[in-house]
Amino acid sequence: MSGKNGLDGVYSRIDRDNKKHIARIRRLLRQPSSSQQDIGIDECADLVADLYREVGCDKVEVVETKGNPIVYGECKGSSDKTLLGYFMYDTMPFNEPGWESPPMEARIVDMKLPAGKVKAIVNRGADNTKGPLAAFLNSVDACVKEDGRPPVNLILIAEGEEELGSPNLPSYVKKDKKRLSKADACYFPYFGQDSDGASNLYLGVKGVVYFEMECSGKSWGRGPEEFGVHSSQKAWLDSPVWRLVDALKTMCDENGNVILIDGFSDEIAPPSEEDKELIATLAESFDPAAFKEDMKVSKFSIPEDDKAALIRKYVYGTTLNIDGIWGGYMEKGSKTVLPHKVTCKIDIRLVPDQKKAAMMPLVRKHLDEHGYEDIKITEIDTGYDACRASVKEPAVQSILRSFKAFGLDPAIWPTSGGAVPFYVFKDYLDLPFTMSAIGHSSLAHSPNEYMVVEGNKKIAGLPEIEKFFVHFMDGFAKGA
Amino acid sequence: MSGKNGLDGVYSRIDRDNKKHIARIRRLLRQPSSSQQDIGIDECADLVADLYREVGCDKVEVVETKGNPIVYGECKGSSDKTLLGYFMYDTMPFNEPGWESPPMEARIVDMKLPAGKVKAIVNRGADNTKGPLAAFLNSVDACVKEDGRPPVNLILIAEGEEELGSPNLPSYVKKDKKRLSKADACYFPYFGQDSDGASNLYLGVKGVVYFEMECSGKSWGRGPEEFGVHSSQKAWLDSPVWRLVDALKTMCDENGNVILIDGFSDEIAPPSEEDKELIATLAESFDPAAFKEDMKVSKFSIPEDDKAALIRKYVYGTTLNIDGIWGGYMEKGSKTVLPHKVTCKIDIRLVPDQKKAAMMPLVRKHLDEHGYEDIKITEIDTGYDACRASVKEPAVQSILRSFKAFGLDPAIWPTSGGAVPFYVFKDYLDLPFTMSAIGHSSLAHSPNEYMVVEGNKKIAGLPEIEKFFVHFMDGFAKGA
Repeated sequence: MSGKNGLDGVYSRIDRDNKKHIARIRRLLRQPSSSQQDIGIDECADLVADLYREVGCDKVEVVETKGNPIVYGECKGSSDKTLLGYFMYDTMPFNEPGWESPPMEARIVDMKLPAGKVKAIVNRGADNTKGPLAAFLNSVDACVKEDGRPPVNLILIAEGEEELGSPNLPSYVKKDKKRLSKADACYFPYFGQDSDGASNLYLGVKGVVYFEMECSGKSWGRGPEEFGVHSSQKAWLDSPVWRLVDALKTMCDENGNVILIDGFSDEIAPPSEEDKELIATLAESFDPAAFKEDMKVSKFSIPEDDKAALIRKYVYGTTLNIDGIWGGYMEKGSKTVLPHKVTCKIDIRLVPDQKKAAMMPLVRKHLDEHGYEDIKITEIDTGYDACRASVKEPAVQSILRSFKAFGLDPAIWPTSGGAVPFYVFKDYLDLPFTMSAIGHSSLAHSPNEYMVVEGNKKIAGLPEIEKFFVHFMDGFAKGA
Repeated sequence: MSGKNGLDGVYSRIDRDNKKHIARIRRLLRQPSSSQQDIGIDECADLVADLYREVGCDKVEVVETKGNPIVYGECKGSSDKTLLGYFMYDTMPFNEPGWESPPMEARIVDMKLPAGKVKAIVNRGADNTKGPLAAFLNSVDACVKEDGRPPVNLILIAEGEEELGSPNLPSYVKKDKKRLSKADACYFPYFGQDSDGASNLYLGVKGVVYFEMECSGKSWGRGPEEFGVHSSQKAWLDSPVWRLVDALKTMCDENGNVILIDGFSDEIAPPSEEDKELIATLAESFDPAAFKEDMKVSKFSIPEDDKAALIRKYVYGTTLNIDGIWGGYMEKGSKTVLPHKVTCKIDIRLVPDQKKAAMMPLVRKHLDEHGYEDIKITEIDTGYDACRASVKEPAVQSILRSFKAFGLDPAIWPTSGGAVPFYVFKDYLDLPFTMSAIGHSSLAHSPNEYMVVEGNKKIAGLPEIEKFFVHFMDGFAKGA
């Protein structure tokens, strides 16, 4: 590291400032920023800009888009390498039942994990991904405070629409191409340790398409059209709810595990040689127990004894998931009504080389061919294709070296099941990308989402996480 | 009529007191009494008791049960005949969207019906059945004010749990058998005119069973068990929502019109000779247009040109209706979640000789045999069997004569599609029963439920309705 104190100085600073750093994370987490419900977005963008300034960015801009603002920051580094930090300050809604600590109080709770006792902050966004954002900013803060500068030039962009499919990120990146293309690689910080301490590095992300499907008497021209009617009328009137059941059943079989839409999976690329090697290695180390413990599940959808098959299912699995369904009377008691409409939300996860643009037409064609021309499908938010990096990518190799420096040998997954809009940086800026870090967080999109801040021998606490970020920046700067 | 002024005096009194009578109806309607949600029940029971007293009942009791109270009243009549008036003071919930006038303001609105212009009170319960209850009490009031007594002895019982399946009515009737069995017949007032003015008399009611079906990862031992998880996990985890779709699809086919549960329809009795004659007559007069106009529907589930077939579908149609379904994310936007449970509400309508007691075991057996042992079914409220009366029944003949006296020749239906617990009076008291009256109301269980108070040449207004009640009591007293 080129700073006057080397890594040790920054590391000590991180240890000394731990309380302040935890406070910064909690401050960001406590600011609601649910993009789905448009709660707290502008306030959160302003707060992120404040934090950029606070940790020493030279230039900070809250860039307006057609949707939620993007918070842009620059921080001059002590090398000629430039890293584009991609973040999101928006989160999922947090009004589901089941929160044991309030979702916006960022309480620090004791937790017993398979890896042992830890302390964790519980809050929406702790895992996905305001926790990692704030922790990364803490590491920049420590570098600037100790050395005046971080080891690399940083361009930071935090968007507020990731949970909406990043609809305005592409046009922003196109417009700001000149500044952004100074970067050598794109980095998305995300905690990569499981609850048992094992670590993971994901080389890519899946694509996503999200839509609503509505079956109504009005479009159908049968059954109740304007309002739900007394259910005695079911004797001679049709039911849009039963019709949706029929339609859904033509789309999937076997508890939703077999997708029946023509052409849906045709384009899926066969595993590459690199993937085959990675999966063979993964199969040796992958322990399903920690995953099941984290998710509180008993079983996978296929037997777990063939671990390579299980991993392939995760990596190559395209999905048609029902995120929600609702219609008719949904409260206490026995209101008897024949509903006039019913709606469900569905998300598709895409793997290479499925094309996002092909999916909605395929669903439409399927419904039409099965006689469901009347069922409305409406794409919600913006979908995109899957995106992958090779393990040989220099930025990926830097991350791997940092994992090893902290005593971890991460399992390398060809892809995560989640979706991140890396395609924007790959397609428009031709930037390689990488993600992950040490640290453990979990329960994205679920109640009791958390990130560990006080770890143990197996799981990194906040200071180690922040040191990891510094180590990664330093290593990336040195190309070593 | 035995009263000093004869029917003309009471009729004039009804005309003179119309404003007061409308006010009484609005007063009762404006008192919320949603038994499903336990809103306003006790207040409404007290109000009904007050109204009993106000119209001249000699004895009034609010009888406690294990659930909501039953309001008992006696009014000595001027003959030795006794009529048991059965009423309900509870209603369906009224929080569904779509109300053009507020559901608890009892506004009087202008309405254009196929029969022409009318004025109607819009309020939850106007049709089902606080409107008919208050109108009946108005007719008693007029008799008492004019003659000192109604033409028959009246025993009035208004229950507050009809919309819950009348769970405590049977034990009440058993307990109070001595007083109640003084009655010669049971009468349930209900407005029998369609929106075009045609009138209907229903000789019976269907039975009903209501249950919830819940599919959860927890019971299944697959998929998310404790909470919804990030939908990326669908790649290797199972979905309880898709499982419910599969399970429902084994229960019904063809948009819910073909029930596939073994034994479900086996016990249905063939049409009786009386039914066949009634249906043949109905087929000549039944005009589907008014029904479709009232319900704002375009089509029946079978072609309407064969009117006898259509009527048989209504009369003999047993149903498995999905009243509501819900699970996962049901709000704005695109939250990606693999839900851990999904629930639906289903009601079964029973025709003779299907047995209520057989239905839940049949559903359970069906699910078990199809591998859905894990899907929970919970009966909600109390179901009961269908109940029928013959057109030859003296009480029915009295009602028919009153219809004719008011210029109407009602279409006689073997049964309504709705459920009323007449079985209690038939099984425990061996009482014949009848229902219906002139007048028009509609949209039970729907927004904008209404009853006409100012009619026209085709549809009875409130004074005519109340005169009808007096005529019926008088005719029943005379046995003519």
